[in-house]
Amino acid sequence: MRMRRLKWAEDYLKTSPSRMMEPEKVKGRWKRKLKTDGALHVEIGAGKGSYSHDMARMNPEDGFIAIEKNESAAGMISKKYDESPLPNLKMIYGDATDLRNWFQNREADIIHLNFSDPWPKRRNAKRRLSSPAFLDQYRDILSEEGEIWMKTDNSSLFEYSILQMLQAGFELIDFSVDYRRDEHPEDAITEYERKFMEAGNPIYRSVWKKGRRKND
Amino acid sequence: MRMRRLKWAEDYLKTSPSRMMEPEKVKGRWKRKLKTDGALHVEIGAGKGSYSHDMARMNPEDGFIAIEKNESAAGMISKKYDESPLPNLKMIYGDATDLRNWFQNREADIIHLNFSDPWPKRRNAKRRLSSPAFLDQYRDILSEEGEIWMKTDNSSLFEYSILQMLQAGFELIDFSVDYRRDEHPEDAITEYERKFMEAGNPIYRSVWKKGRRKND
Repeated sequence: MRMRRLKWAEDYLKTSPSRMMEPEKVKGRWKRKLKTDGALHVEIGAGKGSYSHDMARMNPEDGFIAIEKNESAAGMISKKYDESPLPNLKMIYGDATDLRNWFQNREADIIHLNFSDPWPKRRNAKRRLSSPAFLDQYRDILSEEGEIWMKTDNSSLFEYSILQMLQAGFELIDFSVDYRRDEHPEDAITEYERKFMEAGNPIYRSVWKKGRRKND
Repeated sequence: MRMRRLKWAEDYLKTSPSRMMEPEKVKGRWKRKLKTDGALHVEIGAGKGSYSHDMARMNPEDGFIAIEKNESAAGMISKKYDESPLPNLKMIYGDATDLRNWFQNREADIIHLNFSDPWPKRRNAKRRLSSPAFLDQYRDILSEEGEIWMKTDNSSLFEYSILQMLQAGFELIDFSVDYRRDEHPEDAITEYERKFMEAGNPIYRSVWKKGRRKND
């Protein structure tokens, strides 16, 4: 998500209580940190942060971590989370270049990819959050029964992701080319998603199980 | 495809040269019959028949068989094929309840499913051309490198088919949620498809390789 630069964000992030300052130091202890015995959810590219906030409110037994690398967006997220704090929700301001620095093997239960940047040019394919190197990371940090939930409005990114995830040996367990055709009160609607729904555009969604690695 | 009953169809089909009267007698000899060394294409539910006709014209080295069970539609197909005959194209008027009666194991190379009846009610799921019993037949009659090409405008049928085909061990090799976003001059546009494109609706498409049967 592109957004205007917010000048206050840099300073705000320095002291925000909802921000995990040194996530690498919490590695292996996220559930304890979030006081949860439930599932650990990790949203990568959280935008303005409402998805994880809504989901954390709807699922108080689970733990949620919203990751965002854009400073202004991260500022908005941490402000939102500080203003209506939830014990089972934290945010990380940083680039998810290697999630294995922040999460132990099999530590996460559900990875959320919501309306990720499609990086349409082929030379930028590596930056897509469903490219092979990212899928390798997800596999490592996901628990045995772990899942990836992906939503997008971008048909090309959806097509690319489906083929990549199958290639990487993930198992498709749910799939929709028009997810909001039906009501899904169990899944929060992101700010971005709301706009697309109002414009009458379809939301694509897929849910993946870690499954066995190909050639295992 | 629903259509008005055409009274002339019954009589016409009795003597139509493009119709294979006893397809079970050609079993194992389709390529010889169609005078082709190329791929053998089988379209199941050919509607008005233009897809196979266009594809047979565009691919003179391949053989094409259009199957249709609706008498009026079959009448239109055979009339069309008789009026502009192609040596590599025949039609079968009949219900594809068991394709193994008409085709030998591994005899077909590409199965085409174009805008199949979605049979939306769950109790009719068995009738969908991508239900497990049909997929079993396709696997048997497809060659080792054989493929299924499927197009539909129906999002629910598309979602159902993707999950069923993966479940049956077919390998997804191409996938689009908006196939006509790009031009595909190599793939003919069906009468039905043209209407949907003109209405601005997306065409869903998937291409499958036979792959190995699950648990093989």
